[in-house]
Amino acid sequence: MGIEIERKFLVQGTDWKNEAGVRYCQGYLNRDKARTVRVRVAGEHAFLTIKGISTGATRAEFEYPIPLADAQALLALCDGPCIEKTRYRVPVDGMVWEVDAFAGDNAGLVVAEIELQSEDQVFSRPHWLGPEVTHDARYFNSNLAAHPFSQWRDAAP
Amino acid sequence: MGIEIERKFLVQGTDWKNEAGVRYCQGYLNRDKARTVRVRVAGEHAFLTIKGISTGATRAEFEYPIPLADAQALLALCDGPCIEKTRYRVPVDGMVWEVDAFAGDNAGLVVAEIELQSEDQVFSRPHWLGPEVTHDARYFNSNLAAHPFSQWRDAAP
Repeated sequence: MGIEIERKFLVQGTDWKNEAGVRYCQGYLNRDKARTVRVRVAGEHAFLTIKGISTGATRAEFEYPIPLADAQALLALCDGPCIEKTRYRVPVDGMVWEVDAFAGDNAGLVVAEIELQSEDQVFSRPHWLGPEVTHDARYFNSNLAAHPFSQWRDAAP
Repeated sequence: MGIEIERKFLVQGTDWKNEAGVRYCQGYLNRDKARTVRVRVAGEHAFLTIKGISTGATRAEFEYPIPLADAQALLALCDGPCIEKTRYRVPVDGMVWEVDAFAGDNAGLVVAEIELQSEDQVFSRPHWLGPEVTHDARYFNSNLAAHPFSQWRDAAP
């Protein structure tokens, strides 16, 4: 078990883009935020991840590597379509931002996440960072499967 | 991934009891029968198991060992109370029956399951076997959490 402390922002422009990212395909065996169960294929690797409910920016997380073939079969059991995105790792002042450029029904959405050691940890904000959406449920990956960005992008900040 | 072909029966009397069983405590991160996600503590071991929808007596099953401490934390995230039971392995004519004697809100319920290689495989029926309940959803462990035996035992076969 781990504890995940994460903040999430929208991204403006493409100045953050450094190198080829890794293609992700993920689905949900449960989208309930109290017990989210995610199947993720990340390039040639695959993971099963369970997350509990968030308290502030903190969330209990349990992640287990699983065989790629299992993940592909599990994606077929998932509730709703697969979320497709490319993940880029972008170093900024000694920390690493994970920038997700979504595809499919969520094309046009780009978000950046940073993992912190504590909720009040100070971090540099690169110029390509847009508004914070840590607590905006529309941007939860578990919600983007059922309610993709294409359906509500005109109302986005 | 595996395929699980299983038949389930009620149990009569106690002639099947051979030795000390293993205490199980299990809960569900999703009780939806199309994508059941189970956390199980079995003695000193723990597992995360995902099952798809049944076709006849056959069901896709994916099982992963996880650390005991993770399982105990995951049980707290589960939907509904833990199911408690003791599992006994009972050899009969070269095959092994798994007999589950439930406790807590399901006390009094004893079921026997046999895992088969094919749906039409022939197997010996020991004299302590009662009516078959393979397709009776009330006996699904995922349902016994929310609707325990104590609530409907008078209507049982």
